[in-house]
Amino acid sequence: MEEIYRQECMNLLDSVSVGRIVFTARALPAIRPVCHLVDGDHIFIRTDRNAAITSELRAEDGTVVAYEADAIDLAHHLGWSVIVVGLARRVTDPDVAGTYLRSLRPWASGAKDQVIDIRADMVTGFRLVADRASPVGLERGVTDA
Amino acid sequence: MEEIYRQECMNLLDSVSVGRIVFTARALPAIRPVCHLVDGDHIFIRTDRNAAITSELRAEDGTVVAYEADAIDLAHHLGWSVIVVGLARRVTDPDVAGTYLRSLRPWASGAKDQVIDIRADMVTGFRLVADRASPVGLERGVTDA
Repeated sequence: MEEIYRQECMNLLDSVSVGRIVFTARALPAIRPVCHLVDGDHIFIRTDRNAAITSELRAEDGTVVAYEADAIDLAHHLGWSVIVVGLARRVTDPDVAGTYLRSLRPWASGAKDQVIDIRADMVTGFRLVADRASPVGLERGVTDA
Repeated sequence: MEEIYRQECMNLLDSVSVGRIVFTARALPAIRPVCHLVDGDHIFIRTDRNAAITSELRAEDGTVVAYEADAIDLAHHLGWSVIVVGLARRVTDPDVAGTYLRSLRPWASGAKDQVIDIRADMVTGFRLVADRASPVGLERGVTDA
């Protein structure tokens, strides 16, 4: 297993379109797969105003979330995982939100009109590499937690 | 998008070997990809005694975590996601731990000797289906959060 540095982590995130947002909902850990878009040091996701994550972001000052994306091929012991932790806020400026809504895949229904901006405050990543001493490199990701 | 019922959720989890454990570490949301094994209403993962999740489970009464696995093919708008929320505890009985350690893939290094038992208290799942009104079915997963 080898560590991936920040800029490469962001590039890897940008290379895929699905990740998982991790937050707290009613004092319980919660996770939802979503589509994302990377813009500089920020990750943007699109969501519904009735979604659990939207409720958590009602406060003006946002909330800290984690965001994870990975591409793991256990059969060949290859892959990577990137984890971002940072402040998530609802995008309230309609012009800014509109820009990201247009970029974040077309969405026929009018309901999913909320954009959430996750600032990548802490970025960690690791890549699975073949390792004679530990054939299943993936599990070592937990070791470094 | 359609909901998946509990037993099928557990079967889908059992059909893959990698998922993501979601917990709180030092008051921040945390997520790590891990290998798992499903046994009845429990999910077992293997981890290191120095891992962040292990530290969170020091208390005898365990802690509530989320566990997620998915298989998403955005190109074809197909896939599924299963989310389990439940009490996670360290398996302290060496015989029981040994059984799962043997089943949870061989591991050459001696360090990853902890087994965590996640009880599937709440199980939710959804399947992506083609939907004329909302071509990207995935994002609707958030709607139901």
